[in-house]
Amino acid sequence: MVKFADRIQKIPEDPLNEIMKLSSDRDIISFSLGSPSKEAYPTEFIINATKKLLVENPVSMLSYGLQEGYVPLRKNFIEHIAKSRNINANLDNVLITTGATQGIELVSQVLLQEGDKVLVESPTFFAALPVFKKYGATVIPVKMDNDGIDTNDLEVKLKKYAPKLLYIIPTFQNPTGITLSEEKRKAICKLVVKYGTIVLEDDPYYDLRFIGEHIMPIKSHDKNENVIYLSSFSKILAPGLRVGVIIANKEIINKLVLAKSGADTNTSLLSQGICSEFLESGFYKSHMNEIFPLYLNRLNKMIECIEQFFPDNIEFIRPEGGLFIWLGLPKEIDTKTLLKTSSQKYKVSYVPGSIFYTNPSEHQNFIRLNYSSNDESTIEQGMKRLGMVFKDYISGLFF
Amino acid sequence: MVKFADRIQKIPEDPLNEIMKLSSDRDIISFSLGSPSKEAYPTEFIINATKKLLVENPVSMLSYGLQEGYVPLRKNFIEHIAKSRNINANLDNVLITTGATQGIELVSQVLLQEGDKVLVESPTFFAALPVFKKYGATVIPVKMDNDGIDTNDLEVKLKKYAPKLLYIIPTFQNPTGITLSEEKRKAICKLVVKYGTIVLEDDPYYDLRFIGEHIMPIKSHDKNENVIYLSSFSKILAPGLRVGVIIANKEIINKLVLAKSGADTNTSLLSQGICSEFLESGFYKSHMNEIFPLYLNRLNKMIECIEQFFPDNIEFIRPEGGLFIWLGLPKEIDTKTLLKTSSQKYKVSYVPGSIFYTNPSEHQNFIRLNYSSNDESTIEQGMKRLGMVFKDYISGLFF
Repeated sequence: MVKFADRIQKIPEDPLNEIMKLSSDRDIISFSLGSPSKEAYPTEFIINATKKLLVENPVSMLSYGLQEGYVPLRKNFIEHIAKSRNINANLDNVLITTGATQGIELVSQVLLQEGDKVLVESPTFFAALPVFKKYGATVIPVKMDNDGIDTNDLEVKLKKYAPKLLYIIPTFQNPTGITLSEEKRKAICKLVVKYGTIVLEDDPYYDLRFIGEHIMPIKSHDKNENVIYLSSFSKILAPGLRVGVIIANKEIINKLVLAKSGADTNTSLLSQGICSEFLESGFYKSHMNEIFPLYLNRLNKMIECIEQFFPDNIEFIRPEGGLFIWLGLPKEIDTKTLLKTSSQKYKVSYVPGSIFYTNPSEHQNFIRLNYSSNDESTIEQGMKRLGMVFKDYISGLFF
Repeated sequence: MVKFADRIQKIPEDPLNEIMKLSSDRDIISFSLGSPSKEAYPTEFIINATKKLLVENPVSMLSYGLQEGYVPLRKNFIEHIAKSRNINANLDNVLITTGATQGIELVSQVLLQEGDKVLVESPTFFAALPVFKKYGATVIPVKMDNDGIDTNDLEVKLKKYAPKLLYIIPTFQNPTGITLSEEKRKAICKLVVKYGTIVLEDDPYYDLRFIGEHIMPIKSHDKNENVIYLSSFSKILAPGLRVGVIIANKEIINKLVLAKSGADTNTSLLSQGICSEFLESGFYKSHMNEIFPLYLNRLNKMIECIEQFFPDNIEFIRPEGGLFIWLGLPKEIDTKTLLKTSSQKYKVSYVPGSIFYTNPSEHQNFIRLNYSSNDESTIEQGMKRLGMVFKDYISGLFF
């Protein structure tokens, strides 16, 4: 028997792994993952970019690289992304990570230790919770309204717990799809300065706005360099490449680079090169223009299917972008227990709502549905199955 | 002022980053990095593999993947690598990592905590030391002989410290180039069972044997599942892809998967796909056959240059493979202090020996030279410069 470290004993199971496995069966229609549209992956662009990068600069692509990340990608990120989001950054403020997941991991490594508190929106991205715990922190939930985190509850908890970190997903929040209002973004900047807390702003869905106007990141209002900004290529290009970005003040970046060095030396250079070409070539913009109508149609289709196939008394907020619909079912339905039957018998999968809460007995009747990764006819078929799961359950057919 | 976590405060500086920066200037001839030959990168193979993978299976390459790694790569690793090294493994024993660096990181995360001891060869791979420390361990050096770790000193320290882990690079050790004898490999397997210590066997150079017969890994003698085996594609294909492999018992792999999930979800799938094709296509073998004569010529050239350009009283062991020559200069030379002058004024860089020791005041007169990454004429030019650095220093020219 191996004696494992206490930190890993705090993670009793990995819901993500279970969900990935339940979704990997080809018969199953999966609404689980936060992946872009399968059909919209720009395969040809990636093949051509790979060829260009390897022909023009094979050594930079194939040797070890700087821990901070491939310089052209960092420059292109500043030029094409940070600027358009009113974020001031120079090369010293940018670290490339192996997906935004690694951003959460590295920030936790350099900031958190036993006894620290982390505030999170309730619900929040489930995969962040075990990482904060792994590095010794206690996670404390903060209530949410329809325009994002409840700033009154936030101030109460900032005062009470003096937390090290506030983890927040401001735009098309995962799982709720809610976007934090501009007023609240500004208010948060002031509050965290007052209470000495650092904001970890996780913003992978920013670009995926199909309706309405962009709202600038919390980081754009960050005069005191109190905000660490996480971005990602997973939602706008391809998660399989595993490329994310951290923007933060230089002092924090320097420590993150130390952690990055031990973590994996540097992110795959070919992946970084492809992302750099994606921005520099301008293909980024045309790709967004191509996928937006697709995503909007899928979102509309999914909502249509909810109305058509699901039981009555369904609760949901229509999102203006992002990848998810967050949906409340009748109270008697425990979606976590139902997932196995749903995947194995009805061949359709979703993410149960309870895993997004620090207290998993809450919101057992919620589910998160992804609408971007399947085409409309698959959405229809899958939603029909899913409606049946819930209707059969309610009518007592499972017993 | 940000208050950082204690664990990251234990890493005061990053020698690797400094070395990368000193080597990134194009004027400098670098003997620092452990990279394969620049000319031998199989660019065309990688372009074609990328095309094949993206045309045949774009969704597997571009979406999220299993944390354990891409199934075809894990199968191919077992079939083409593990078997030839007498290592028994099935799919449940294999985890793909973002370079072997991540292997060291993840193993440390799941096994080490405050108060634990880790034994290492002295000298050892410098980048592993801060990772063990970051996760709370105290690192204890064990002496080396010309046939690898001193098993008497090892037993003394196993008994005295009851260490959690023995970290060892058995083949063409980094930095010394020494290979652990078969007798000692077997002896280590027995010793660690007796004292309840886990072996972390880091074996990235195994394939790079130009002279003599392969010696099977410690893992091949591991009846008690006490050995965690790390392998890498960085030395035989390309470090820029960032793909490594861990083989261990299922219980350990399950915990490592939990850590991997938080660390970066999964390794770049395109990188994993390319490595899988590298093995499956048989190109792996022909690529080895192509680079071996190249490497052997470069090794010979470098040794010739040492004899021709360096001061007298140089100490080194002629390696039978791997990537490095470990070289002792006259005692009065402090190679760490000299590196800046060497890089900036003489335009040649190396890795100073002291950074491979837990006590960096030891072996200040040693350097590690990489012979694989430059062509023969560049080696000659660089070694001429380096000989001059040391001769000028000895003759008092720097003062």
